[in-house]
Amino acid sequence: MLNVGVVGASGYTGEILIELLLKHPRVRISGLFSQTYKTRAVGEVFPQFSNRLDTVFCAPLAKEIASVCDLVFLALPHTISMNYVPFLLSRGKRVVDLSGDYRFKDYRVYEKFYGVSHKDTSNIKKAVYGLPELYRFSIKRAKLVANPGCYPTAAILALAPLVACGIIREDTLVVDAKSGASGAGRKLVQEFSFCEVNGDFKAYKVNTHQHIPEINQVLSRLSEHTVDVTFVPHLLPVERGILETVYCFKKPVSGRKRGIPGTVRRLFANFYETEPFIRLKEEGSFPRLKDVRGTNFCDIGIKEEADRIIVISAIDNLVKGAAGQAVQNMNIMCGFPEKEGLL
Amino acid sequence: MLNVGVVGASGYTGEILIELLLKHPRVRISGLFSQTYKTRAVGEVFPQFSNRLDTVFCAPLAKEIASVCDLVFLALPHTISMNYVPFLLSRGKRVVDLSGDYRFKDYRVYEKFYGVSHKDTSNIKKAVYGLPELYRFSIKRAKLVANPGCYPTAAILALAPLVACGIIREDTLVVDAKSGASGAGRKLVQEFSFCEVNGDFKAYKVNTHQHIPEINQVLSRLSEHTVDVTFVPHLLPVERGILETVYCFKKPVSGRKRGIPGTVRRLFANFYETEPFIRLKEEGSFPRLKDVRGTNFCDIGIKEEADRIIVISAIDNLVKGAAGQAVQNMNIMCGFPEKEGLL
Amino acid sequence: MLNVGVVGASGYTGEILIELLLKHPRVRISGLFSQTYKTRAVGEVFPQFSNRLDTVFCAPLAKEIASVCDLVFLALPHTISMNYVPFLLSRGKRVVDLSGDYRFKDYRVYEKFYGVSHKDTSNIKKAVYGLPELYRFSIKRAKLVANPGCYPTAAILALAPLVACGIIREDTLVVDAKSGASGAGRKLVQEFSFCEVNGDFKAYKVNTHQHIPEINQVLSRLSEHTVDVTFVPHLLPVERGILETVYCFKKPVSGRKRGIPGTVRRLFANFYETEPFIRLKEEGSFPRLKDVRGTNFCDIGIKEEADRIIVISAIDNLVKGAAGQAVQNMNIMCGFPEKEGLL
Amino acid sequence: MLNVGVVGASGYTGEILIELLLKHPRVRISGLFSQTYKTRAVGEVFPQFSNRLDTVFCAPLAKEIASVCDLVFLALPHTISMNYVPFLLSRGKRVVDLSGDYRFKDYRVYEKFYGVSHKDTSNIKKAVYGLPELYRFSIKRAKLVANPGCYPTAAILALAPLVACGIIREDTLVVDAKSGASGAGRKLVQEFSFCEVNGDFKAYKVNTHQHIPEINQVLSRLSEHTVDVTFVPHLLPVERGILETVYCFKKPVSGRKRGIPGTVRRLFANFYETEPFIRLKEEGSFPRLKDVRGTNFCDIGIKEEADRIIVISAIDNLVKGAAGQAVQNMNIMCGFPEKEGLL
Repeated sequence: MLNVGVVGASGYTGEILIELLLKHPRVRISGLFSQTYKTRAVGEVFPQFSNRLDTVFCAPLAKEIASVCDLVFLALPHTISMNYVPFLLSRGKRVVDLSGDYRFKDYRVYEKFYGVSHKDTSNIKKAVYGLPELYRFSIKRAKLVANPGCYPTAAILALAPLVACGIIREDTLVVDAKSGASGAGRKLVQEFSFCEVNGDFKAYKVNTHQHIPEINQVLSRLSEHTVDVTFVPHLLPVERGILETVYCFKKPVSGRKRGIPGTVRRLFANFYETEPFIRLKEEGSFPRLKDVRGTNFCDIGIKEEADRIIVISAIDNLVKGAAGQAVQNMNIMCGFPEKEGLL
Repeated sequence: MLNVGVVGASGYTGEILIELLLKHPRVRISGLFSQTYKTRAVGEVFPQFSNRLDTVFCAPLAKEIASVCDLVFLALPHTISMNYVPFLLSRGKRVVDLSGDYRFKDYRVYEKFYGVSHKDTSNIKKAVYGLPELYRFSIKRAKLVANPGCYPTAAILALAPLVACGIIREDTLVVDAKSGASGAGRKLVQEFSFCEVNGDFKAYKVNTHQHIPEINQVLSRLSEHTVDVTFVPHLLPVERGILETVYCFKKPVSGRKRGIPGTVRRLFANFYETEPFIRLKEEGSFPRLKDVRGTNFCDIGIKEEADRIIVISAIDNLVKGAAGQAVQNMNIMCGFPEKEGLL
Repeated sequence: MLNVGVVGASGYTGEILIELLLKHPRVRISGLFSQTYKTRAVGEVFPQFSNRLDTVFCAPLAKEIASVCDLVFLALPHTISMNYVPFLLSRGKRVVDLSGDYRFKDYRVYEKFYGVSHKDTSNIKKAVYGLPELYRFSIKRAKLVANPGCYPTAAILALAPLVACGIIREDTLVVDAKSGASGAGRKLVQEFSFCEVNGDFKAYKVNTHQHIPEINQVLSRLSEHTVDVTFVPHLLPVERGILETVYCFKKPVSGRKRGIPGTVRRLFANFYETEPFIRLKEEGSFPRLKDVRGTNFCDIGIKEEADRIIVISAIDNLVKGAAGQAVQNMNIMCGFPEKEGLL
Repeated sequence: MLNVGVVGASGYTGEILIELLLKHPRVRISGLFSQTYKTRAVGEVFPQFSNRLDTVFCAPLAKEIASVCDLVFLALPHTISMNYVPFLLSRGKRVVDLSGDYRFKDYRVYEKFYGVSHKDTSNIKKAVYGLPELYRFSIKRAKLVANPGCYPTAAILALAPLVACGIIREDTLVVDAKSGASGAGRKLVQEFSFCEVNGDFKAYKVNTHQHIPEINQVLSRLSEHTVDVTFVPHLLPVERGILETVYCFKKPVSGRKRGIPGTVRRLFANFYETEPFIRLKEEGSFPRLKDVRGTNFCDIGIKEEADRIIVISAIDNLVKGAAGQAVQNMNIMCGFPEKEGLL
């Protein structure tokens, strides 16, 4: 049994992490750390865990965390994670960081989009971007995994096969993203009150969201060209789930064409052939949030028509978009079966 | 007082029409016609009208309709409207048809997308497409107005200024549309049950929706080129409202460029300068469904960045997208103040 | 045209008041006052009013309010209203106070349930409880109307006929109340975030709500006995609306019985015979929130069975439960037709 | 591994049963039977099971069911179950019936409330009412378990300790019940469409619901007197969950009183001391739907005040109110740990 801890266990992501780890047959929850709820029983803060879990939230002190855990999930706000990572790594702990702190190869991109300076640039190069479908082998050997953002997970999985084979124009990629309200975390802002969100729908951070450079970074590494997506996120009146509708235009096929082996759907089927958490929809079928709710699956549907390709992907933002993918990364890092605790 | 009637008064659109006409100071509801509810009191079928309206639904017989109304709203399913229009026109009645039956200049497009044959092709050329922002002068003299579809209303209003001035590429236009569940009407299908829609979100009719040719027809008339939008509608877990996010790429500016007078926002401000129901959002602000709910407004927000323009439009699908626009058309046809009964 | 002002115009109730007053043919909005939004345009704070209303929010200074208004609506939090009332009355203004400050005949009850001391006990006796169905004649002559709470409005209207005729036991009255989230106002608390409220349902302030003494005070005045209801409010995952299910047990019928003229339904029909905003449902039919949403109606349904009577009442908490009833009171105070601006 | 089958696997309850059995470590799903979906893959009908379950729905033929299953869950509509039970019992199969067919000791009560005649009265006496908290020992030896209705589960668990000790009046019991829309099953009726349910709330079957005699039957067996509850169910705009607010009045305490050992809360604590799925809330805390969603728990909160006791209970109608309780019953019947597969 692996001793695992969750730091920042009081947000939505922390809550789902507790739920998943509680059911995971190979781990023991050896510590739950929360500044907000320290000294309070987990079952009292989250009544759904009462009669199921006896733990008390502890203050998130790095030394204490290191003393009781082999692997640590950092479910902390951006900029807080980097206070913990250096110490935990120095003590030989494995870390899955769910914040944006270690996702960028170039810390200046991080600093620009997150508006803060990076305090641990030396560990950035050790961090592996934790999208198993692209980086499974690196994750296996990683000490520090930067768990991807929720929007990038769905966007990259929808675009990777197309970008990698070079058949689509990189300059007209459009990602229209829609997320449930839990994506904003347990923040206390008027904008997320029931009477504001219910019955409403709107775009926000129109083409300025901090997840844009994350998507561009990963896709550009797959491509021969710099990818620069147009990205508009929207707020859905649902609790959980992200659905992204991705619009691509094919490159004109010239003499020396970089071919596509069969149809676009076939391309996806090959690309994700052995992936346990990618479900490709049948021709004419498309994902919906309900099918992925509470699961670690990413469902993908494709529509190809003349020079256009529309790809629709759906995930549960709190599972494949956060806590579930973190557990998947832990499974890979620790040599557990990848699906353990996730089905 | 104008004597008006509503045929097909039992759907969502009919319900809103009754509500609007009831408050309209220049009309008298002289007949409400419904096959489903004939002989039943309106206040019994729709309890929100009890103590407010004494009318009884009548069977929708063309002669009876003609005998009591000066102007008739046809809130009927596609293919049913064309059974009424020839007779009503022959009796000198003015008609606002809310179905798709008279929206297409070319009946073969209608037949292809609606999957039926057109039984009244001769009246098609008399029909005016009832989007006042583009065709106010024709509507003024029209006997038959084809009230626009809900999706086309929001899409065309978002794109018209850009397409008309020719600055955007016509071959990469993307319209990502999201509609509340009332857009499907009061159909009885499992797909629209509460437990299916609530907490869910999905695309449907991916790039095959029957509103696509309607959008293309109107925009192509504004442009020098054939417009062929990529259009994906999605089902939102809200009752009312449509929000469309429109992605455009600018044409490369050559020597003999077709100029743009100032910024894109200025272009919209000029185009819609005197429009009573278009509200242009301030720079950095974008529409939301709640702001237009229950109103006849179309709110529009714009984001311009390098070679891209993102336009977001929002309407209430049952008001500006159906019943409200129908009343606006009636106001224009009858010489009433255009905002009468709509604010 | 009467010059009216709204103080505290930035809450949900203030928003609806603006909406109602804007459509009211006999008033002119002469001032909107808000500490939070002073100097900002109304259409900017509430985009639904943009292009409809030019007003700017002013700081809520008593002198300024008095100088521009004939009648003032105080849509302020409890304990704030009483800072304004003495001055406004002294300047001859009519006041409709929507807070709880002037609803109690005995200020000690107020102090106990609201947890503060009352600073204007001398004006309490001038205040008329603004439930037109019971106190229309006093309202007509009132300078200060204490607009009823939302829960009490629905509870009292459901119970008044039964309590007044003395046929039910006063010691086993149960009111099970359910309210939409706007009932809590525009407070910023975690409990009212979308992710907490959506998909949830719960009781709160179980038999301890501050509306209990308000209900008891009014019903006891109607009865020969002290009424002491059992009252449990619940939070519904809807924006607007209150539905209350009231359970009564009949008194055993003795020799000299205080009779009931026909059935219970007849009793209600007589009691509310001329009331413009009470709609009694047919036998076997019961109210639903949707039927009253956006209206000033209180719908009432009755089930009588052996020794039990179940009464169900529904209102829109922001209309008949607040802003609408306030306008109804204004209409009565000013001699306008009672339904003016409310249908 | 026990071979289990589900008949009527295509409703909401069937769906949850599949989910629970899939994760249960001691059973093998040996057959899923559905008239509606026979020959179709489960993962195609319910996409959430794709990549997780390979089964194909079979036609629900009694012989085939008996040939592949040791224990059968009948998730069928009322009146259909009794077509299967005699044959399955005759073949030595254990049956958990989730319909109302075998819940009543007196078949005439069933016939009156369900409006049909009972075709298998001989097996009624073999059926054990599957509420483990009251009848665990009988369930252990049962061949046929009648799984309780969802409303009765929450009502009986809220009332059993009070009724059993005789401290409350049996003639003034009020149960105000609220259920999510999945309680109605996957029926196709206008009343349950998204646009009808969302934003709405209403009572239905006011004091006439078929679950009333079920509640009365069980409570009367616990009491010295006939219990006759007043029961009003309401439809909540949520998918899952039941919350019931129960109002009791204490009997006047006489000389020879039937005492209560401490407070009412203590009474509940003792009564449910060893129950794995009852969670008693702390003084001043009350249940909410979210805490029990997706779990087999029944949360109970209590408020005692003078002569009144208010008890609030909450369950997930599809889990403790149906599929979860059915699995709990299977665990008991088969000697598995009672919580197996349910935490």
